[in-house]
Amino acid sequence: MRIGIYQNHPEFGATGKNVEKAVIDISLTDADLFVLPELFNTGYQFTTMEEVHELAEQIPKGNTCRRMSALAREKGMFIVFGMAERDGDNYFNSSVLVGPEGYVGTYRKTHLFFEESDFFSPGDTGFCVFDIGGAKIGIMICFDWWFPESARALSLAGADIICHCANLVLPNCQTAMITRSLENGVFTVTANRVGTEGRSGKDPLTFTGGSQLIDNFGEIKVRMGKTETGIAVSDIDPVQARNKAITPRNDRFLDRRPEYYEILTSAIS
Amino acid sequence: MRIGIYQNHPEFGATGKNVEKAVIDISLTDADLFVLPELFNTGYQFTTMEEVHELAEQIPKGNTCRRMSALAREKGMFIVFGMAERDGDNYFNSSVLVGPEGYVGTYRKTHLFFEESDFFSPGDTGFCVFDIGGAKIGIMICFDWWFPESARALSLAGADIICHCANLVLPNCQTAMITRSLENGVFTVTANRVGTEGRSGKDPLTFTGGSQLIDNFGEIKVRMGKTETGIAVSDIDPVQARNKAITPRNDRFLDRRPEYYEILTSAIS
Repeated sequence: MRIGIYQNHPEFGATGKNVEKAVIDISLTDADLFVLPELFNTGYQFTTMEEVHELAEQIPKGNTCRRMSALAREKGMFIVFGMAERDGDNYFNSSVLVGPEGYVGTYRKTHLFFEESDFFSPGDTGFCVFDIGGAKIGIMICFDWWFPESARALSLAGADIICHCANLVLPNCQTAMITRSLENGVFTVTANRVGTEGRSGKDPLTFTGGSQLIDNFGEIKVRMGKTETGIAVSDIDPVQARNKAITPRNDRFLDRRPEYYEILTSAIS
Repeated sequence: MRIGIYQNHPEFGATGKNVEKAVIDISLTDADLFVLPELFNTGYQFTTMEEVHELAEQIPKGNTCRRMSALAREKGMFIVFGMAERDGDNYFNSSVLVGPEGYVGTYRKTHLFFEESDFFSPGDTGFCVFDIGGAKIGIMICFDWWFPESARALSLAGADIICHCANLVLPNCQTAMITRSLENGVFTVTANRVGTEGRSGKDPLTFTGGSQLIDNFGEIKVRMGKTETGIAVSDIDPVQARNKAITPRNDRFLDRRPEYYEILTSAIS
């Protein structure tokens, strides 16, 4: 299975332009599954609810979903991409999975970072796994990486590949994702953006690039530069992620002892 | 608070000699809390239950505990050390905490590695936190690191410092512990051994050294070499681990959403 990663530098608010650029770039590359960054169509740094209202789109009715679904159909591929979602009066930082048959599903970001909670509601989908035929894929978004429960929940639910749409500004994630792959025995694909956004009245944010694919033993299969834009591809056998062996006597899942993990699902006082 | 780490190369089965060497080495260094490797007194590679029966000791009655308690009393320090425990007809790969007032508590390894399960029962203590006055400490042993639930459970239970007694043979742990510190906002102290054991009928095992202290932001405060033996010290303020802030709007614990983590404590089918 060929995985494509798209590392972009969107122009804030130029949704149509950002989507068309992605469509052109991606249409030149054959892959079975493409992963794009968080909020790849809008840019990241919202400053008012009016902007959110103007730029967020319905899923799957909106233009971004329709355009990406058409691309997926034309290319016979699956695509995971991040976008601002409008659902009635609610807004979410979401990622969408589309495939050759059209819309498949949506994940709404569980752990919101910094000022995102001024504009988006916390996700209410939980961690979902989608069977796309040759692989089961889970989706998480950016800051979800910090919480080991995110990748763990997806992996326990059967994900072979975790598609991680990101707009990273902290430096720690790319290394931590090696641990996420290793501890869970899954492939992780982090698609990040580059560039700086410093919108009116806001401190500028610089995004760290370094999009990467880590295999189920924690090896870096591909990692992009900190400032480049473009596409990286890597060929993997996602079914390898179903073998959770560490040694002939140890297994990532069978060796777990959930009776001693109960504090992880208790409410904190 | 000064933390001492003892990286040793024990002689298999020479329990008295290994303990006396540790006592002499450690007595020359002032620290508030010392962490020693897993099975520091016996060596690692047991080959028969007779050996386990011969070398395992009762806690806190046995010679190793009494000797380490005396050292802790003399030096006015706390010490965490790994040893083979005998409890009636049961044997555990355990770590013990002693302090100026004597025995404090025991942790029995939850996740056994490779052939350890031929000789030891899986731990039945769960992940315990001990308040030693200036800090709350949690204990885990070697392979527990692979399971993110171990460090997470200790941290949620209030540990400021995770004392990680290890006999590591895989190369991944030292880097993964950076993620464990970062995700939980805790200090982690990994005390590992060096050298090779290749006992009769067994494939030789080489231990990876690299004992280290990682701070609550994932920075390496000290890391020892892969083959050296001896002591490293580092001064920390463990109370810093009680501030779980990541940004002014994000907190490692308050941002958790346990309602979406339930699969982590469900039994696997």
